[in-house]
Amino acid sequence: MRESVGLLGTGRMGTAIGRRLLAAGVGLTVWNRTPARTEPLVADGAVAAATPAALAACEVVFVAVSASADLLAVLDGPEGLLARPDGLRVVVDCSTVSAAASARARQLAADAGVGFVAAPVSGNPAVVAAGRACFVASAPAAQFAVAEPLLGRIGRAAVRVGDGEQSRLVKLCHNLYLGVLVQALAEVTALAEKGGADREAFLRFLGETVVGSPWVRDRTPALAAGDLTPTFTTALLRKDFDLGLAAAREHEVPMAVAGLTHQLVQAAIGRGLGERDLLSLFAVQAQASGLAPPG
Amino acid sequence: MRESVGLLGTGRMGTAIGRRLLAAGVGLTVWNRTPARTEPLVADGAVAAATPAALAACEVVFVAVSASADLLAVLDGPEGLLARPDGLRVVVDCSTVSAAASARARQLAADAGVGFVAAPVSGNPAVVAAGRACFVASAPAAQFAVAEPLLGRIGRAAVRVGDGEQSRLVKLCHNLYLGVLVQALAEVTALAEKGGADREAFLRFLGETVVGSPWVRDRTPALAAGDLTPTFTTALLRKDFDLGLAAAREHEVPMAVAGLTHQLVQAAIGRGLGERDLLSLFAVQAQASGLAPPG
Repeated sequence: MRESVGLLGTGRMGTAIGRRLLAAGVGLTVWNRTPARTEPLVADGAVAAATPAALAACEVVFVAVSASADLLAVLDGPEGLLARPDGLRVVVDCSTVSAAASARARQLAADAGVGFVAAPVSGNPAVVAAGRACFVASAPAAQFAVAEPLLGRIGRAAVRVGDGEQSRLVKLCHNLYLGVLVQALAEVTALAEKGGADREAFLRFLGETVVGSPWVRDRTPALAAGDLTPTFTTALLRKDFDLGLAAAREHEVPMAVAGLTHQLVQAAIGRGLGERDLLSLFAVQAQASGLAPPG
Repeated sequence: MRESVGLLGTGRMGTAIGRRLLAAGVGLTVWNRTPARTEPLVADGAVAAATPAALAACEVVFVAVSASADLLAVLDGPEGLLARPDGLRVVVDCSTVSAAASARARQLAADAGVGFVAAPVSGNPAVVAAGRACFVASAPAAQFAVAEPLLGRIGRAAVRVGDGEQSRLVKLCHNLYLGVLVQALAEVTALAEKGGADREAFLRFLGETVVGSPWVRDRTPALAAGDLTPTFTTALLRKDFDLGLAAAREHEVPMAVAGLTHQLVQAAIGRGLGERDLLSLFAVQAQASGLAPPG
């Protein structure tokens, strides 16, 4: 028998997730607030439902909506998924929502006798489509165990980091780490370049070493060219630093280098680079180093 | 015809380089200050020579000695490689030496009509033995072109970053980047852990994402266990920060995050962790965060 899986939200991320499930042979029922947006998945074999409540017979339902309020809206109320949770065991939320909304959703699910796995995704819809996404999940082990085989068919890995809302914090930690990495890369690239090294060759070398990551290799052409076309804006990076450092304040964890990076991100936004790519950190560093401005 | 290649210095790194060349079918002549240390390579098919000067008939000679003075000693003087450079086209120095010694060696070679490629290696002898080493080279393009095919048989990549001594600076940039990466990892790991995430699962997730590097994945077991057994000591990391930040001062490049990391490395050494692993940065961060000390 094919698994009976539901999907609430068929925007770019939801559609990418749904396609991976259909490709794996999973039986999929989908719903979206704007019904026309379910059409690509229906063309691939999914069944469209009229209300979230209609998915309550599925054993697992994925949620991929765009905001905190949308998450609560699809779960709660007379037409919500949790109204009559007939057969539903676990809700897997892949949306990017606040910890408060996630905790509220977890409580609503618990009240209905349903499990809740917070599973934000590392990777954009193109990464998900390529099967390269990585999920960071938090939920009690038994609930994660229900979701894990499906997460493993969507992406290449799913790691459970805790019982509750830890996955949201871990996603922020990931983005703090990314921001510091970009600033460190900006500093050493400026030093190598001012010392006479070829910028592109330097980045190519760094990408080949043990400290090289896919991110460094993927962004080397843009950084070599000084291209600030946004992939992730400086302003969005600041939002994650605001949230991540607030979480660190709450947990009483000092963040020396992340805190300084926060202010350097602020300096890039102060110079008017908020809507440019987060490689703006290099633009500011290059200017402070007396190098020709990138781009 | 087999290439005629020489190797001066058969310590751990030199032996690993020589083995890769022999395995690639290269004809190899070797010399070492302590002759007995050439025996493993001779057993594998190399020919031992009595003096550095005896290698001057080779087209390319690699140098892998342990200090600046040793580099000049093998090149200079009546028994030195450059005394009668019969057939010798290029010296490729894979030693870790000062920029001043490297520049002096380059001048000695030029005076003898021989090319000089500075090619420090990213990777320890075990990495070289596995064929995973990466070389960062600087030399005029024509000289690099002579060395490149051989470097490509020893390691997996050789990148030319400039005409002169830039490769030394790039190696320092690599180590500054590593140091900042370790501090950033220490901060986000402490935050994730204090927020209730499992440390090992958090690191496993980070290693799978686009910001994950081989270094993060290789060191995850040690960091998860709080194991400070030295792979690269905190004191050696400080030495590279001393040199790297002095170079940045010379080139007038501000290093905000690297400068702060320098002081945090100093704080770890001040607490008595100089001879422990550079993961000492996490030990200090854990203490400042009120977490149980690692290990």
